[in-house]
Amino acid sequence: MSNTRIEILDNGYIELIDMWGSDQSIVEAARMSTNKEFKGWGTPENPGDEKLLAFLWRNNHATPFEMAGAQIEVKAPIFVFREWHRHRTQSYNEMSARYTPLPDENYMPSVERLISVNAGTTNKQAAGVDQKQVSEEDALAWMANLASAYGMAQRVYEQGLTLGIPKELARLPVPVSRYSRMRAQANLRNWLGFLTLRMAPNAQWEIRQYADALHKILSEIFPRTLSLFDEGRSKL
Amino acid sequence: MSNTRIEILDNGYIELIDMWGSDQSIVEAARMSTNKEFKGWGTPENPGDEKLLAFLWRNNHATPFEMAGAQIEVKAPIFVFREWHRHRTQSYNEMSARYTPLPDENYMPSVERLISVNAGTTNKQAAGVDQKQVSEEDALAWMANLASAYGMAQRVYEQGLTLGIPKELARLPVPVSRYSRMRAQANLRNWLGFLTLRMAPNAQWEIRQYADALHKILSEIFPRTLSLFDEGRSKL
Amino acid sequence: MSNTRIEILDNGYIELIDMWGSDQSIVEAARMSTNKEFKGWGTPENPGDEKLLAFLWRNNHATPFEMAGAQIEVKAPIFVFREWHRHRTQSYNEMSARYTPLPDENYMPSVERLISVNAGTTNKQAAGVDQKQVSEEDALAWMANLASAYGMAQRVYEQGLTLGIPKELARLPVPVSRYSRMRAQANLRNWLGFLTLRMAPNAQWEIRQYADALHKILSEIFPRTLSLFDEGRSKL
Amino acid sequence: MSNTRIEILDNGYIELIDMWGSDQSIVEAARMSTNKEFKGWGTPENPGDEKLLAFLWRNNHATPFEMAGAQIEVKAPIFVFREWHRHRTQSYNEMSARYTPLPDENYMPSVERLISVNAGTTNKQAAGVDQKQVSEEDALAWMANLASAYGMAQRVYEQGLTLGIPKELARLPVPVSRYSRMRAQANLRNWLGFLTLRMAPNAQWEIRQYADALHKILSEIFPRTLSLFDEGRSKL
Repeated sequence: MSNTRIEILDNGYIELIDMWGSDQSIVEAARMSTNKEFKGWGTPENPGDEKLLAFLWRNNHATPFEMAGAQIEVKAPIFVFREWHRHRTQSYNEMSARYTPLPDENYMPSVERLISVNAGTTNKQAAGVDQKQVSEEDALAWMANLASAYGMAQRVYEQGLTLGIPKELARLPVPVSRYSRMRAQANLRNWLGFLTLRMAPNAQWEIRQYADALHKILSEIFPRTLSLFDEGRSKL
Repeated sequence: MSNTRIEILDNGYIELIDMWGSDQSIVEAARMSTNKEFKGWGTPENPGDEKLLAFLWRNNHATPFEMAGAQIEVKAPIFVFREWHRHRTQSYNEMSARYTPLPDENYMPSVERLISVNAGTTNKQAAGVDQKQVSEEDALAWMANLASAYGMAQRVYEQGLTLGIPKELARLPVPVSRYSRMRAQANLRNWLGFLTLRMAPNAQWEIRQYADALHKILSEIFPRTLSLFDEGRSKL
Repeated sequence: MSNTRIEILDNGYIELIDMWGSDQSIVEAARMSTNKEFKGWGTPENPGDEKLLAFLWRNNHATPFEMAGAQIEVKAPIFVFREWHRHRTQSYNEMSARYTPLPDENYMPSVERLISVNAGTTNKQAAGVDQKQVSEEDALAWMANLASAYGMAQRVYEQGLTLGIPKELARLPVPVSRYSRMRAQANLRNWLGFLTLRMAPNAQWEIRQYADALHKILSEIFPRTLSLFDEGRSKL
Repeated sequence: MSNTRIEILDNGYIELIDMWGSDQSIVEAARMSTNKEFKGWGTPENPGDEKLLAFLWRNNHATPFEMAGAQIEVKAPIFVFREWHRHRTQSYNEMSARYTPLPDENYMPSVERLISVNAGTTNKQAAGVDQKQVSEEDALAWMANLASAYGMAQRVYEQGLTLGIPKELARLPVPVSRYSRMRAQANLRNWLGFLTLRMAPNAQWEIRQYADALHKILSEIFPRTLSLFDEGRSKL
C-alpha cells in the first residue's frame, strides 16, 4: 500500500490513509451463505475463487463488497466537496472555517480547461455547448479578472479577521473555489458507487480527476475487484 | 398544516411541502411490539397514550419516531447548506450552478449580528471571544467592503457566462454566502436529531435560525412529540 | 388510496397505512436543480413533465425518487421478515416475542408449492432442481409431519409460559415459519430497490408474493413512476 | 490483535476478523477541522491528545469515531441475529438456509438461566417477574421437552430434504434457537451504539453475552476510546 499523495488540479491531492479487507475477504464473506471458506485463487487454466468474485459482481450481490474499504485524505475546492458530500454513505471530517482561517488557496483552471469545454465534459447542459467557443484571449482575460476577484475576497476575509469579526462570518466572501481538506472513508461497495457516478463522462471534469486518482489507489489495493469494475459496471 | 413560508435571514425561508404520520402513528408503530393498537389520548386527570409516547421518548425507543416525517423547501446561503448536508439521513434535491446561473443573492449579516459576537454564539472558538469587540463603525466599513467583494464576484461570474465559459466553471468566484435552494426530507427521528445539533447554543447563529423555524413547523404538525422534545432531549 | 388489506399466503397480508409525495413531487424536487417548477403532465400528442420523469428514471437520477414514500403494515412468517430486514434503508417496528406471546399461526405451504419446485423458483441452488421431483403423496405426508412439529413446538412454548419461563426464553422452540407482524416504511427509491430484488425470479416465492402485492399498492399511488419501473429497471 | 475466538453460550462465538484505524486516527480525523495534526499521547502529569479524545467523546462529536472500525465473525442463535440485524448501519453476510442445510445446533439454555429470571434480566415485561418463580424441577422437565421439540423439528427438516423438498421450504420447522453464522462489520461509532443498546440491563441476557465479548475485543484494539465508553455514555 503506497501512501504517497497523488497531486490533483493546481493545489489538491488524494492520499490513502488506511484500508481494511481485501479481494479475499469479499469472497470469505460471500462464502458465509453456504457455510464454506475461501478456496484460493487459481490460474487462467485452472481458475479458483476469481470465478466466485466475478459471479458476485456480475449478479449484483453487493453486500460482500462492503467487507473491505479505505480511508483517504483529500484536498479539493469547496465546489468539489459540495458534490462529494452528497454521497451519504461515507464518513467525513473536514476543515472548518468556523474554527480556523482557510488558507488562501483557490482553484484556478488552466486555459486549456476553459477553452476546451467540449473536451472537458460531455454534459451538454453544464458545458454550455450551444454557447460560442471561448477564445484563448478571452480565457486569459477572464482568468485575470478571476484572480482579482480572488484577491479582493481574500482581502475582505483577512480584514474581517483583523477587525475581530468572528471567523464564521469573516468567511462570507470566500469563493466556492477555495481549497478545503478532509478525511473520507467508505466501504468498497460505496466507493465503487462513487466512482460510477464521478468517473462518468457527465461528471464535472474537476471531480473526475479525484475519482480517477481514487480509482488508481483502489486498483492497487483491491486489484481483482477493480478489474471487474473496469469491465463495465452498472448496478452496485 | 400551514404551508406559509417562514422568512429567515435577509433572503431565505423554510416552507413545509409535505408530511406524513402523526403523534398517533408513532404510538401505533410502537404498539406493534405488543401486538396491540392505539388506545386514544387522555386528559390530565385520566391520561391515555400520551403516557406511552412519553415513555418511548424518555427511554430512547427511537424507531417509532421514524414512522412520521416531513418534507420542506429551504432557501439558505451555501455555507448553511454545507453544514446541513452533513446530516446523511436526509434526502436532498438542490439547485445546481452546473445547470442554472445562481441568482445574485448573497447573505449580508446585520450590524447587530457582526458586533454582538458573544450574543450570536456561545461557541468560543468560532466566535473569537478572545478577539477585541467589533465597533459599529468597523462593522459598517467591513459590510461595505463585503458588498464590493460580492459585486466584483458577480461581475466576473456574469462575464464568464457571457464569454461562453461553462456554467460549472464560471461559478468559481461565487462566495459561500450565495443563496441556494433545496428540498429536504427526513423522518421525525432524524429531524429531531437535526434540531438537537442545530438549535444548540454552539451551532452557528445562521443555521440556528433555520432550525428554530423548523422547530416551529414540526411543533404544529407533531405537537405532542415536540412538546416532549422541548422538555429536554439528549439521546435520539 | 385504498387501505384495504391484500391477503398473502395462508395467514399474511400487506396494508397501506400512510403515504407521502406523488409522481408530481418527484418532478418538483428534480426541478430544484434548474430553479424551476412543475409544468404539468401532458398528453400523448403533447407530452409534459412525464418526459422529465422518464428521463430521471432512465438516467438513474435517483434522489428525486426519495421525495415520496409509503408506510405499510405486513404480516408474514419470520423467515420472510429475516430476508426483509436485510434492507437497511427501511424503518421497522415489529411484534416482539419478548413482550407478547406470538399467536399460534405458522405458514403451511400448499401441496402445489411443494411439488412445483421449478415453477416456484428459478433459483436452482435454492430450489434443488437436481433433486428428484416430490410426489404429491410425499408432499402430503411431509405436511402432516410438519403440522405435528408445529403442534409440538407450540405445546412446549405454551408449557414454558405456564411454568413461568420468561417469554424471551419460552419462545425457543418457535419455528421460523411463525407469523409475525410489523410496520415498515421507506421512501419510493428504496421501495423500488426492494421490489427489484424481491420480485426477481431468483427471490424466494413467498417473499415474492409480498413484493407483488406491494407493487400493486405502489402502482395505485405512484402510477407514473411504477409504469416506468415496469418498463424494466436495473440501477436505482 | 488477538484473533482467538471467544466462546459464547453453548455453541456460539465471536472472532475478530479485521480492523482499521486506531484511537490515534480518531484524533487525526478530528484535527482536520482545525487544519492540524496528531500531537501525541501524554502522561498523567503532562496529558496530550487523550484530552482531545475525551473532549470529543464527552461533547458528542461523533463523526471522528467513524474513522476506525472492526469486522467480526459471529455464531449465534437466529433469535439473537433477529435483534442484531435491527442495527441498520452494519454490513452483514450470513449463512442462508436457502443455500445450505443449517447444521443441527440449537441453543439450550442452562437450568440457572431458566430459573434465575430476575438475575437474567432487569426487563420486567420480558422477564415476566409477575409470574411465579420457576423451580429447578420444572426447568429440567421443560428442557427435556424442548430437546424433544428440537429433535422432532430436525427430523422433519431432514425428511423434507431427503424427499426433495427445496431447502428454502424444508427449513420451515427449524426453531428460532437454531445457530447461524455471519460476518458483521461496522465503524467504531456504530459498534459503540450497538454496545450501548445490547450491554444495557434491559437487553436480553443472550445478546448481552455477545455484546460483552465484543466489548472485550474492542477494548483490546481501541483501548483509549473504550475506556471513555466505560466511564458512561449516553449519546453517540
